[in-house]
Amino acid sequence: MRNLNQDNITQAVIASFSQTADPRLQQILISLVQHLHAFAREVELTEEEWFKGIEFLTGCGHITDDKRQEFILLSDVLGLSMLTVAMNNHKPEGCTEATVFGPFYVKDAPQYELGADIANGAKGTPCVVRGTVKNTAGEAIPGAVLDVWQSDEDGLYDVQHTALAQAQARGQLQADGAGAFHFRSIVAVPYAIPHDGPVGAMLQATGRHPWRPAHLHFMVQAPGYETLITHVFRSDSDYLDSDAVFGVRQSLVCDWTQQADGSYLLTYDFVLNPARKG
Amino acid sequence: MRNLNQDNITQAVIASFSQTADPRLQQILISLVQHLHAFAREVELTEEEWFKGIEFLTGCGHITDDKRQEFILLSDVLGLSMLTVAMNNHKPEGCTEATVFGPFYVKDAPQYELGADIANGAKGTPCVVRGTVKNTAGEAIPGAVLDVWQSDEDGLYDVQHTALAQAQARGQLQADGAGAFHFRSIVAVPYAIPHDGPVGAMLQATGRHPWRPAHLHFMVQAPGYETLITHVFRSDSDYLDSDAVFGVRQSLVCDWTQQADGSYLLTYDFVLNPARKG
Repeated sequence: MRNLNQDNITQAVIASFSQTADPRLQQILISLVQHLHAFAREVELTEEEWFKGIEFLTGCGHITDDKRQEFILLSDVLGLSMLTVAMNNHKPEGCTEATVFGPFYVKDAPQYELGADIANGAKGTPCVVRGTVKNTAGEAIPGAVLDVWQSDEDGLYDVQHTALAQAQARGQLQADGAGAFHFRSIVAVPYAIPHDGPVGAMLQATGRHPWRPAHLHFMVQAPGYETLITHVFRSDSDYLDSDAVFGVRQSLVCDWTQQADGSYLLTYDFVLNPARKG
Repeated sequence: MRNLNQDNITQAVIASFSQTADPRLQQILISLVQHLHAFAREVELTEEEWFKGIEFLTGCGHITDDKRQEFILLSDVLGLSMLTVAMNNHKPEGCTEATVFGPFYVKDAPQYELGADIANGAKGTPCVVRGTVKNTAGEAIPGAVLDVWQSDEDGLYDVQHTALAQAQARGQLQADGAGAFHFRSIVAVPYAIPHDGPVGAMLQATGRHPWRPAHLHFMVQAPGYETLITHVFRSDSDYLDSDAVFGVRQSLVCDWTQQADGSYLLTYDFVLNPARKG
């Protein structure tokens, strides 16, 4: 321990975790340190670059509050979020695919009756959303609970409007006895992820745009089934092939059809995977 | 980009950096993403563990302010700081070795005349520190500037005393025309790094103590020489073989000798490395 150098320090740090009570935590920390050190060695990180990294993380921490989550954005734009989703959501053929959770979910969103307008004043073109929650045998899942959230036509979620007290374009509904649901909201549009912070500066420095294709977030829960966290994307949206957070799945891309009165209709069925036996 | 999975997402993220203007930034980000993804794959990171990681970083960000730097602490206890120091300070035989910078340096510390008491009221046993700044040929470096900082006998740096307005046990001095310096301060004692935050929780979960062996920080600067950032450790200190931040170098361990009056004397010479030609 008195003369650690760049060749043996990694083993010393790993050894320091030998008394970790939780073997899973120990495994994670050992792997993390090995990869973190391998990164620093591979690029021959300078002390100035190390300090820029410290400043970057500090900036992410200071812009993060109960309505802004820069670390999730960072994970999203580095593809770590989608990688984690992909590894943890191997579902049988026919199940609805999962995608990233994102930073804008809110617990305890207002509950609505089927058919309600969850826009609740959010700006945008009216849109009716309907569908059924089923299992892989095609059977309805009665009473499934759906959390829905989306941005308004300015590309902002309710929590990004600092002056806004009530939830908008966000709500929780319960499918009926036949697994069917329907509600009114607004048409999703492409939006830029928050890019006035450190993650935005990184995107700019790398020549990347901050845009996401138009989508509606869903979290679908029912007893005996795996919780599904996903989006439904608009097939006519820009950025489907360059999503800033790498979240598009072709199976989640769907036509949102314009009606005679100018409003839209989205029909999408969700297929849940049975929960793994505990 | 529409059907990225755990096998091809890394390549997609790397490709997203193809327009990065600065080739060094591009190299760093590509390596970072490869190692970050390799880590997540190796441990098969769960979504719950991913979220705990987000919460951990958020906690580090929120406890960090202008006097507390949890990200540097994190880098320190994971050995990344010492690895970076080791990689960037290959010095010729005979030069004083470098060690970690730590989170407690303060820019523009008070300037003192040689012989002054930089303790400035800090609690501790008096100690005289003296030495010479030289080059590898043994020649004095006149006028070298030394920044010095240390904790008090309670193990706290001045910036950790919230009620304290003035600098204590911290100052800047200039060696004389023969490269010699001397000042008064207090004896260094072992101290625990701040462990009431996320990094402390991690140390506890891994069965690691937060202690550092007794040391005095130095930053030594002179035109034409590499800046030296280092400590001088006490040879009779606890924790020399288990420094929480992996910073001990045997060549920096030195006897601090007690005098007849109970005070201490530390004599240590610094040998600077010529600056690389730009």
